[in-house]
Amino acid sequence: MTPYDVIIIGGSAAGLTAALYSSRLGLRSLVITKDIGGQMLLTNEIQNYPGFVMISGFELANKIKEQAELYGAEFIYDEVIALEESKECPSLCFKVKTRFDEYHAITLILAFGKTPRDLGVKGEDTFKGKGISYCTICDGPLFKGRIVAIIGSGDQALESAQYLTNVASKVYLIHNYDKPIGSEELVKQVLSLKNVESLPNSKVIEFQGSSKLEKVLIQNTKSKEIKAIDIDGAFIEIGYVSKTDFVKDLVKVNDRKEIEIDKECKTSYSGIFAAGDVTDFPYKQAVISASQGCIAALSAYNYIQRLKGKASLKADWKAIKQKA
Amino acid sequence: MTPYDVIIIGGSAAGLTAALYSSRLGLRSLVITKDIGGQMLLTNEIQNYPGFVMISGFELANKIKEQAELYGAEFIYDEVIALEESKECPSLCFKVKTRFDEYHAITLILAFGKTPRDLGVKGEDTFKGKGISYCTICDGPLFKGRIVAIIGSGDQALESAQYLTNVASKVYLIHNYDKPIGSEELVKQVLSLKNVESLPNSKVIEFQGSSKLEKVLIQNTKSKEIKAIDIDGAFIEIGYVSKTDFVKDLVKVNDRKEIEIDKECKTSYSGIFAAGDVTDFPYKQAVISASQGCIAALSAYNYIQRLKGKASLKADWKAIKQKA
Repeated sequence: MTPYDVIIIGGSAAGLTAALYSSRLGLRSLVITKDIGGQMLLTNEIQNYPGFVMISGFELANKIKEQAELYGAEFIYDEVIALEESKECPSLCFKVKTRFDEYHAITLILAFGKTPRDLGVKGEDTFKGKGISYCTICDGPLFKGRIVAIIGSGDQALESAQYLTNVASKVYLIHNYDKPIGSEELVKQVLSLKNVESLPNSKVIEFQGSSKLEKVLIQNTKSKEIKAIDIDGAFIEIGYVSKTDFVKDLVKVNDRKEIEIDKECKTSYSGIFAAGDVTDFPYKQAVISASQGCIAALSAYNYIQRLKGKASLKADWKAIKQKA
Repeated sequence: MTPYDVIIIGGSAAGLTAALYSSRLGLRSLVITKDIGGQMLLTNEIQNYPGFVMISGFELANKIKEQAELYGAEFIYDEVIALEESKECPSLCFKVKTRFDEYHAITLILAFGKTPRDLGVKGEDTFKGKGISYCTICDGPLFKGRIVAIIGSGDQALESAQYLTNVASKVYLIHNYDKPIGSEELVKQVLSLKNVESLPNSKVIEFQGSSKLEKVLIQNTKSKEIKAIDIDGAFIEIGYVSKTDFVKDLVKVNDRKEIEIDKECKTSYSGIFAAGDVTDFPYKQAVISASQGCIAALSAYNYIQRLKGKASLKADWKAIKQKA
């Protein structure tokens, strides 16, 4: 099996733009991803991506994907579970093990973003995808006319409530404060919604059901009283985490588990680059992720050129005083 | 005259995106620029801006401008000739003198780009964007299977040849030396390429064509012989110029006269940010400039918030650990 020049892990703005640039530079490029869009899918109306007054995350992601495919980028829908160094570098530097297969590459671009945080309670794993969701925009429409609970206290949970009030018959907002801690305006607005019931000072103890989610057990943290609430769905909206454990033996991560990169999107390991929300760059915006995908691909290209003893293209993008 | 929160100098991808973000964040924002598009206007067909399979630099620039105007960004067509510090900071930190007026601001974003060096010959202005390009990476793919000439003798021209050999059917390398003066390895490699023909001791006299570029007239500087060569495209790769002399007393520039920035697009002077091709960042691409414009605007916003003793928004774009 001929190794790919570059394997890109992740299919959101960063990974897709990396694929566009690397394939356009003639690198044999493979994107391994669980979906097209990643966290962009959570946004129905992106208004600040330069060039589009308004576009959905789904549409923007698919536009970049099609653009990358024009230049030959390949896509595999699978989940990466392990990365391994190879002794055969530079002809083959990395093995990428997925749930269903194994792929080989000379360089890697890590662009798998962030993953919704688990609540970590009994029954959560059992009912994932069977009533428990981590993405209101993705799964909300499935609960038309049903009873749902949102677990969370910040803007993310409140925006979920704002959406679900128009879909579900009843929305419980379960949080561990006297009142939600999101932005003032949003808190006021959500608490005034007729079918939204705030359950303050409450902690989820367990999710219960048979083949599907049927109940959530909550405990009042003041009175210690436990009660069961009948629900059809639960949305866990408590932020995102970096699932970088499977790469942390190869590349340096910070205390938030974000992958450390330099200006040129290089990680601490030669030949591995990273881009987008999985990195330690503080601002998280679609255009920044796209730019980092571009930079990572250019850096990967230059790295491969140097491995082959060829000049890198870097100077092309520099200002050089030259004579004709 | 109330000072602007931010004055952005330059109207290409970086400046326009900075205006989009800063006005969307509620900052009173003014763009002072000679044109809308800057170097983007040199490219008729941008194929690598994520989201558009193909768009002209003119169209993309105007889309971002309209997007920024939706949020209240203002535009003045003028040329900045001097920047001055003010003693009244933080209420008024900078005076911006233009050819026709004077403006006041709390922060500045420098985004006035670079200018590719012109060859300065007859027909060059006529066929800019109609066969004549100053960016191989941007426009090279448009000349698949066509005949092109590169004008230049150094690494920039040689790397252009290295790239175009795989795209064009025939590549002329026009330079005014016995052999190209770039790095030895690169010269050797390029001269061995089958479809690259070096035209030594040659000076371009004129570009000719009708609606598009068709011919280049060159003169041998030894024999004085003039000949016409049929070409579809010409790449003028003789460097860029940074016109940063009017800011170099305020902000640190490198030996290429590029403005030095950190990851957050801060210059060496508090309250002055920079983005795009005018900076020392090595890769020059529209999406990277747009991203830097976004970052500069977010950093300017945070700077102003801190001046006012308010919390910065930075954490808003971070993965925040939230409690349920």
